[in-house]
Amino acid sequence: MQHTEKHLKSSALITDIVIGMSDGLTVPFALAAGLSGAVQSNSIVITAGIAEIVAGSIAMGLGGYLAGKTEQEHYATELKREYEEVVEKPEVEKHEVREVLAEFGISKNLQNMVADELATNKDQWVRFMMKYELGLDEPDANRARNSAANIGISYIVGGLIPLTAYFFTDTPHQGLMVSAILTVICLFVFGYFKAKVTGQAPLGGAIKVTLIGIAAAGAAYLVAKTFNHIF
Amino acid sequence: MQHTEKHLKSSALITDIVIGMSDGLTVPFALAAGLSGAVQSNSIVITAGIAEIVAGSIAMGLGGYLAGKTEQEHYATELKREYEEVVEKPEVEKHEVREVLAEFGISKNLQNMVADELATNKDQWVRFMMKYELGLDEPDANRARNSAANIGISYIVGGLIPLTAYFFTDTPHQGLMVSAILTVICLFVFGYFKAKVTGQAPLGGAIKVTLIGIAAAGAAYLVAKTFNHIF
Repeated sequence: MQHTEKHLKSSALITDIVIGMSDGLTVPFALAAGLSGAVQSNSIVITAGIAEIVAGSIAMGLGGYLAGKTEQEHYATELKREYEEVVEKPEVEKHEVREVLAEFGISKNLQNMVADELATNKDQWVRFMMKYELGLDEPDANRARNSAANIGISYIVGGLIPLTAYFFTDTPHQGLMVSAILTVICLFVFGYFKAKVTGQAPLGGAIKVTLIGIAAAGAAYLVAKTFNHIF
Repeated sequence: MQHTEKHLKSSALITDIVIGMSDGLTVPFALAAGLSGAVQSNSIVITAGIAEIVAGSIAMGLGGYLAGKTEQEHYATELKREYEEVVEKPEVEKHEVREVLAEFGISKNLQNMVADELATNKDQWVRFMMKYELGLDEPDANRARNSAANIGISYIVGGLIPLTAYFFTDTPHQGLMVSAILTVICLFVFGYFKAKVTGQAPLGGAIKVTLIGIAAAGAAYLVAKTFNHIF
């Protein structure tokens, strides 16, 4: 059991890191690409990129953390209500159990037997209603907090990769060339692992993540360049 | 039925718009705020903001669309596999039905009866396994595509709100003042409706969305300013 838990924890961490990094690569890369077609100095590209990374990681990390808390509160509220309902209106709740089973063509007789048996244990009855009537699994409090922090930090690391190119080059144009090569390689690698840890086909996933990054960067470049010509 | 469907569709659209707008306000606002402390010209803030909006909306829209497609493929693959399994190894699948019920303390006798009854209708048996063994609901193809497009477009509209302030002011400092007032009001309003349409407490939701926006903008401002002083 202890071994299994350790295994689970480490792969949850890897999932968070891979998701955060592959997402973090996309928007900062595209923003830097967009600005490269419109401004003359690498330091503006870097400043904007860093501002985006800070903003994006806080929106993602804090947003994810608060969403996790909301989910927990929602679960706790519904759990309390279900416990009240099985005491106050057991017949209504038994009827709901029967309805869940009726959906799969289970006979009236069998529906009644399952509902009656569930009703002998309040905890299991409530857990059945939470999962099959409401579709709610008990959220893991620590997991939500850690996950948000891990994804936020990985977003920062992922976002810094496309920006490094602008540190070591002299013009935004040169920066963009190096950044594009570096980022496309990283998008493919992290897209591959993102698909692997989220249970998709790795090669297809790698291509998808890479194409999204290229499309976003290409569009940002064209729009920023056009906009800069007009104004 | 026709009425219900219409109602469902329009509220799905409203949900997408509200989510896209409230998210779209956050990062472009924070990016513009960050740059306001570091650059001297409104046009750089606007160009960077527009590049971010293009990049973010494509990453969100295209990313959401492809994630929806992946989910459909995953469902189709698992469905095919379950149909094969109920034919090739019905005893294993019956055992899995019993395990689902055993989790809720249903007696061995009743587990067998439900498993045997489910096995008389292959479609309902498979649907039971999909939902209760694998936790998969059938994804709606059109919904995923429309939702991604609606959220992407709403992200653009939401993101333009904080930028408008920089069009009508002379310096990034002035722009930031107007942008902050305008955006905080909008974050609160859209946060309120976002919480309402996603079933949370509206006031608490409004405060959360507003605080995430302010935290992201404040951090981006401080980091970009500090960074600009050092380099």
